[in-house]
Amino acid sequence: MSDPKTISFLSDYGSGDEFVGVVRSVIRQIAPEVAVIDITHEIAPHDVKAGGLALARSVQYLAPGVVLGIVDPGVGTDRRAVAIEVADGEAYFVGPDNGLLAPAVQMVGGATRAFELAEPDLQLAAPGPTFAGRDVFAPAAAHLAGGVPVERFGPEIDPNTLLPAMIPITREEDGRLVAEVLWTDRFGNLQLNVDPAEIDAWGERVELRFDGTVRTGVRRRTYAEVAKNEIGLVVDSYGLVSIALDRASAAADLGLDTGAEVLLRPFDDGDEGAPVAPVPPTPVTLRERP
Amino acid sequence: MSDPKTISFLSDYGSGDEFVGVVRSVIRQIAPEVAVIDITHEIAPHDVKAGGLALARSVQYLAPGVVLGIVDPGVGTDRRAVAIEVADGEAYFVGPDNGLLAPAVQMVGGATRAFELAEPDLQLAAPGPTFAGRDVFAPAAAHLAGGVPVERFGPEIDPNTLLPAMIPITREEDGRLVAEVLWTDRFGNLQLNVDPAEIDAWGERVELRFDGTVRTGVRRRTYAEVAKNEIGLVVDSYGLVSIALDRASAAADLGLDTGAEVLLRPFDDGDEGAPVAPVPPTPVTLRERP
Amino acid sequence: MSDPKTISFLSDYGSGDEFVGVVRSVIRQIAPEVAVIDITHEIAPHDVKAGGLALARSVQYLAPGVVLGIVDPGVGTDRRAVAIEVADGEAYFVGPDNGLLAPAVQMVGGATRAFELAEPDLQLAAPGPTFAGRDVFAPAAAHLAGGVPVERFGPEIDPNTLLPAMIPITREEDGRLVAEVLWTDRFGNLQLNVDPAEIDAWGERVELRFDGTVRTGVRRRTYAEVAKNEIGLVVDSYGLVSIALDRASAAADLGLDTGAEVLLRPFDDGDEGAPVAPVPPTPVTLRERP
Repeated sequence: MSDPKTISFLSDYGSGDEFVGVVRSVIRQIAPEVAVIDITHEIAPHDVKAGGLALARSVQYLAPGVVLGIVDPGVGTDRRAVAIEVADGEAYFVGPDNGLLAPAVQMVGGATRAFELAEPDLQLAAPGPTFAGRDVFAPAAAHLAGGVPVERFGPEIDPNTLLPAMIPITREEDGRLVAEVLWTDRFGNLQLNVDPAEIDAWGERVELRFDGTVRTGVRRRTYAEVAKNEIGLVVDSYGLVSIALDRASAAADLGLDTGAEVLLRPFDDGDEGAPVAPVPPTPVTLRERP
Repeated sequence: MSDPKTISFLSDYGSGDEFVGVVRSVIRQIAPEVAVIDITHEIAPHDVKAGGLALARSVQYLAPGVVLGIVDPGVGTDRRAVAIEVADGEAYFVGPDNGLLAPAVQMVGGATRAFELAEPDLQLAAPGPTFAGRDVFAPAAAHLAGGVPVERFGPEIDPNTLLPAMIPITREEDGRLVAEVLWTDRFGNLQLNVDPAEIDAWGERVELRFDGTVRTGVRRRTYAEVAKNEIGLVVDSYGLVSIALDRASAAADLGLDTGAEVLLRPFDDGDEGAPVAPVPPTPVTLRERP
Repeated sequence: MSDPKTISFLSDYGSGDEFVGVVRSVIRQIAPEVAVIDITHEIAPHDVKAGGLALARSVQYLAPGVVLGIVDPGVGTDRRAVAIEVADGEAYFVGPDNGLLAPAVQMVGGATRAFELAEPDLQLAAPGPTFAGRDVFAPAAAHLAGGVPVERFGPEIDPNTLLPAMIPITREEDGRLVAEVLWTDRFGNLQLNVDPAEIDAWGERVELRFDGTVRTGVRRRTYAEVAKNEIGLVVDSYGLVSIALDRASAAADLGLDTGAEVLLRPFDDGDEGAPVAPVPPTPVTLRERP
């Protein structure tokens, strides 16, 4: 692993309890020279899919080193704790083998090797069996970042046996692209699992269908170009199509949230030569968006 | 104090204001080589007891150095600001003398010496008298971690005069163990002030009485072993008995919160040989727990 | 810039998404030796004024180096991205030119030079045009802190063309001082834009008028000196007059929030020699304040 050493840390621990601080303290004592960067700890409790998507959105910007991901509803069961090597040792992912790490691992080229975390000497002795972040994952991340060879953590496992990601992909149905809201950000923008290439041939206007209503989305280059009373379709900072309103939360105003289904198809104005049908007015609040 | 230097920092400052950032900036300028690890800053405003319990849960995992704890409803009164030495100088606790630091100090062996923070040269001059974290505690923690001898901060005080902790202990009453919910974590698990040794002789089933109802708790090794419609009693990651449900928040579903009283006694099924009475069904939501 | 290098970072990114972690990761890779201190990231989305006030409250306590401020409703428009030099290069402010940085810049003596961030080699290539924090501001802050001369980032601009701050100042009207609540802190204290010198000649009691009601404020040295059923006027830790109650949130109990108007004038008890009129009782909850 390259210097300087960094552990990038994502979890569903929240900030209200001392979980994150304790994990950082454990790392500090094992590998004081390693920097820890928090990605986020506000993943909803046990939401493996949301955690995996946040890691995937972040991964290409993370510092080389160890990615520590902990969203672990199966703690205490026989789900495996793993260290996944990528790029022949340039970086490692540490966490539960429950699909959380898979999307990010895939984005950086896939696992080259994987190991189960089973060596008690590289873990903390726990008074109870339930805080794997503190007792298993934090020590593993710290020792790995500090230079302990990954082979020492436990038996090698076949990367093909790792639980795969559960990233929804679009599909076609009745001439429509069936998409899903992957992420609702702080500003209410709705990221779809749609690559702009999938709809680029359709032109500026796109028919959107959700919740039984039909609306018109307009392709815009930036959030700022989205006009009043218009539903913008903007390629977001991760390269995916997102739904955005002018100075309002698309999530709040359209009643959509993460996981919602949105159907897209080319806009049909009924008469090729006629003027473009007016966009139905959207109730707009004065709250701004990015 | 051992190298590398670490300040572990807990407060009720929250993340909405700039308080934590300002305290960290003050430390950075006095002792740039010292790492600051946030334990949590989301202690409810002025909840000295909750802050003390969070420190006590964390303390054995913290990096050696200085523990900076600030939950300070008495700021501006004559409550003392103190530095408490433990283990003959291996670590120090800095904060108000209001019981906040006491449980953690006790857990690591008690105070060996204590000093009042009274030396103006080791404080910041303040435009107003009210931000002791910035002007008194942060400079003290930074200077201590940076190597200033603790004797220089002010007059030595008798550790026996430090305000003691207010940790509730269990008591027996009418053949029942009277316990209290110490902590409700992010996942809704309810930590009791009960050492498993206090109830180990009672067997697998324990009668629980709270809010005027009688329920049955079942001892389980992990959260994952708690069955559906069952109230689990799990030794948590801090070694205390906690109440947990299967894939649900015990706090929400049982209507219990921090500070609530729970009475425990051995389960009596009325007839030694009869089958164990069925556990009354619990309304279970789909929200998971760790 | 002096050693050690520090970037102080404020934004409206919140903690729920991975924005802050990604910005920190970008900085880490460009300038691993630089420490990043979070001031706060919980500025309300796009609230430039609140962000500017938080920076102004913090700035005199920040470590020398680079201040990175991102509250950027105009991202994607032609608002400029800038680096502002203060004190002839002792520190720099990096962020959008929308008034966010202005109050803090002013507090430390004003801009000595300013540059537009226009050099693509000192930015990240973005898949979409919208995450300026990651692609423009973080790289600029990191390169600046790491030693790249400010002239290299783009064309020099006239500091007088920078958007000014929108800090409300008090005015006199009908013999009253018209003030505004600048900030409601976590404890419910209401900071006014009133310098104590403006009201020092008025004595201990001050007539307050807000929301159509007339109340009496009493000057107190500390929060702890505010009596029960009394509205305290305390010079807060930033040197401004704030409204505070005894063990209660002034914001909640008085129904005031950031932006509210408060009129002040010397208290007139109608008869110089008569006893001071009793303060009308305030509904007081048991929640404490600092």
